[in-house]
Amino acid sequence: MAKPKKTPRPKAVTPKGFRDYFGAEVTHRNEMLARIAEVYHRYGFDPLETSGVETVEALGKFLPDVDRPNEGVFAWEEDSDWLALRYDLTAPLARVAAQYRDTLPSPYRRYAMGPVWRNEKPGPGRFRQFYQCDADTVGAPSVAADAEICAMLSDTLEAVGIPRGDYVIRVNNRKVLNGVLEVAGLSGDDKDAERGIVLRAIDKLDRLGVEGVRALLGEGRKDESGDFTKGAGLDDTSAEVIVGFMDAKRDDGATTVARLRELVGDSQIGVAGCDELELIADLLAAQGYGPDRIVIDPSVVRGLGYYTGPVFEAELTFEVTDEKGRPRNFGSVAGGGRYDDLVKRFTGQEVPATGVSIGVDRLLAALHAKGRLDTKASGPVIVTVMDKARMADYQNMVAELRQAGIRAEVYLGNPKNFGNQLKYADKRDSPIAVIAGGDEFDRDVVQIKDLILGAEIAKDATAEEWKDRPQQVEVPRTEMLARIRQMLEDQS
Amino acid sequence: MAKPKKTPRPKAVTPKGFRDYFGAEVTHRNEMLARIAEVYHRYGFDPLETSGVETVEALGKFLPDVDRPNEGVFAWEEDSDWLALRYDLTAPLARVAAQYRDTLPSPYRRYAMGPVWRNEKPGPGRFRQFYQCDADTVGAPSVAADAEICAMLSDTLEAVGIPRGDYVIRVNNRKVLNGVLEVAGLSGDDKDAERGIVLRAIDKLDRLGVEGVRALLGEGRKDESGDFTKGAGLDDTSAEVIVGFMDAKRDDGATTVARLRELVGDSQIGVAGCDELELIADLLAAQGYGPDRIVIDPSVVRGLGYYTGPVFEAELTFEVTDEKGRPRNFGSVAGGGRYDDLVKRFTGQEVPATGVSIGVDRLLAALHAKGRLDTKASGPVIVTVMDKARMADYQNMVAELRQAGIRAEVYLGNPKNFGNQLKYADKRDSPIAVIAGGDEFDRDVVQIKDLILGAEIAKDATAEEWKDRPQQVEVPRTEMLARIRQMLEDQS
Repeated sequence: MAKPKKTPRPKAVTPKGFRDYFGAEVTHRNEMLARIAEVYHRYGFDPLETSGVETVEALGKFLPDVDRPNEGVFAWEEDSDWLALRYDLTAPLARVAAQYRDTLPSPYRRYAMGPVWRNEKPGPGRFRQFYQCDADTVGAPSVAADAEICAMLSDTLEAVGIPRGDYVIRVNNRKVLNGVLEVAGLSGDDKDAERGIVLRAIDKLDRLGVEGVRALLGEGRKDESGDFTKGAGLDDTSAEVIVGFMDAKRDDGATTVARLRELVGDSQIGVAGCDELELIADLLAAQGYGPDRIVIDPSVVRGLGYYTGPVFEAELTFEVTDEKGRPRNFGSVAGGGRYDDLVKRFTGQEVPATGVSIGVDRLLAALHAKGRLDTKASGPVIVTVMDKARMADYQNMVAELRQAGIRAEVYLGNPKNFGNQLKYADKRDSPIAVIAGGDEFDRDVVQIKDLILGAEIAKDATAEEWKDRPQQVEVPRTEMLARIRQMLEDQS
Repeated sequence: MAKPKKTPRPKAVTPKGFRDYFGAEVTHRNEMLARIAEVYHRYGFDPLETSGVETVEALGKFLPDVDRPNEGVFAWEEDSDWLALRYDLTAPLARVAAQYRDTLPSPYRRYAMGPVWRNEKPGPGRFRQFYQCDADTVGAPSVAADAEICAMLSDTLEAVGIPRGDYVIRVNNRKVLNGVLEVAGLSGDDKDAERGIVLRAIDKLDRLGVEGVRALLGEGRKDESGDFTKGAGLDDTSAEVIVGFMDAKRDDGATTVARLRELVGDSQIGVAGCDELELIADLLAAQGYGPDRIVIDPSVVRGLGYYTGPVFEAELTFEVTDEKGRPRNFGSVAGGGRYDDLVKRFTGQEVPATGVSIGVDRLLAALHAKGRLDTKASGPVIVTVMDKARMADYQNMVAELRQAGIRAEVYLGNPKNFGNQLKYADKRDSPIAVIAGGDEFDRDVVQIKDLILGAEIAKDATAEEWKDRPQQVEVPRTEMLARIRQMLEDQS
């Protein structure tokens, strides 16, 4: 008889572009989210948690920062509907603001934190699931709402451990750009293509430099490979207005806005944009947020195609070393702005909205790069097992420690090889091991081994200062808790 | 010229079977998760967070508690692979334990909390995304690991606000059932179908009662509609052994185990199961967990088909009123057990594992039903806007409050109608409103309105005790913070 064919074993792999988070990676993120939530709460924002799944219809062709709308989501068909994983937290907010518009307070101030999914080609350091952490105000037409978001972003960065001076929040305004485009002769309905070229060109300022952008504003640009990108066809005077906009930042906000007023001339929308920037700067100054934290900076160009009014971006200004060992600025960790047509898709009514999104994983990477995450060992006290028949006694020890708030566990693997138990304690970053065998139980004592000290001694065996701290002590069973408590205190 | 056809507006609806969580619903859950994590941490478990997406291959045909395996997941094709949303936190743990088996500590003790997705027909109160909160020990053969999980579950329930006496954790053992099946003549490979019928029958004990189960153990049972379900065909003596098993619970653990020993007779696996139950009871007693918290109870039948050793279930014992106004026991909020073939699918090696899963949403519903969730108003202090030109001054007030740790915001809607501002404050559960117009600014004072007291007075205008606490006071601007702090203290 032929043997039945075996089904091959499944592969135990994380799907491509996804990753697993272990131990401190999880707690560090949770602590950061809790700190951010604390600030958002203090500013009067309420939490909202929508599910990971939305109808494709509600999500819409709406992916920001992506040239090909409606790509980039994980979607599947159900009956005649399509469902998809949310790609950000803004699209679900738009759906909620429309769906509950009769019952939600107005303005509606909400924060949301959680994973979002992007169906993109995975790459090094690019994941298809990541955390976002947003706060938005829906229904507030005043730029006071935008100023407040900037102040809150500043407080948030400091609350999670980025000290003042290590970050800057830059504020720009899409309306000023519109004014500049008008002055450059690109305001008509027939100039849509040219405006697109200009937006994409200034988006490439970082990469191409001013000259590269200038070429794209004019006839076009041939790149290193010889490929030619058609330009917006502006004459030199008009191109200079655009370049002047990107380069308008001065030492203080008032001078910057004055420069922008020169550039936008009589353009109504341009003047409105300058007025808004000025008001934001005034409101922030009234709350004590000066240019050491928040600056007017027209070179913030990310998201200008998406937002309709003020735009802001938080950048970390310290240097880190990249994967090739070169120093570079850490860069952007949060961004946001005003988008007044968010809810309109659903209701037809324009509702003013403004908000910010923090890239939690990038912010964690920044703190990690600066060594600002607490990596102190916080492993459990390990009660080792010398005699399996004494399991109840070992469990009694950990119960006593746990009730006193001390993290502790009994070694629950095969206890035969004692070396394995100490290796396990080492792998768990255990601060202390408790050892008790037949002899100890007879005499009603336990051995307490300081594993941190043990590791120190292993590194530097001559250290004089350790002499008074014996690495292993024997204490009566009744004094175990007190002695362990003392040892943990000494270690920290 | 024909008008271009308009695309219809998208519908703003939560997808069927999903829901949105607002405000306190989110914070209550987060607080509960944090409290559970604190207990899990103290017991030596480390967090693990896998992504929501797994390969269908890794998930396997493994859905527990579902008759039709491989149904019930949300899945989609990607290139030649299939991806799916996780349906629980155990399948990803199996994948991780296999994938990282060379680097993880062994035993691997991990906890995980997060949403899982089930592609089921939505029904009232049944959602397709919900939270699970699991702790598992992988690689610990000793039932000390099971006992520990039960103790931890008990501590966890008390930590989240279920007092002792309001819950019970029942412990059973699949091996005892196997012994009973052996005695009943159902141990052979050819009795697989009959064993399935018995397992499904005892699973229906709650619904059918002992007589219904007895019928299914014998020839079969005709239900009220006249449909006939074929039985396991046991004779009366054998059926009595099974019924005896379900009914074996006695006043104390020792007597229960003695009764089970009678039932399993010489069955080797049955005796092993009884030994395990006895050891679990001993270990728990050594840690002080008596039958007021954890009991040996063979009527725990849920999951017996899935688990391979000890099985446990936490039940809330207080009564709640169901949607039809009838009192009923709240029922199960957590369950778990030992499943020794979890990792084998991937590696071929049997790895002992045991764990527990808490139904966070059900536990929240229980606390809600008992009125044990903190529903005290924690809305922000609202600084109202009497004069739009004074926005910087209003922002300055909230900045001062926030820096003092007080939740506060300026009203950012259209300030024209002052009544709307107070309605907004009411909707936000605001404790205090600050009011300042031209007159107040001239005299450098603010009006502070106690909205909680206002609501009390509105309810009971004659209340004598409120006389000394004026509902609205005028204070110098410099005393605003101190007065608000005092008022918030008086309110709480």
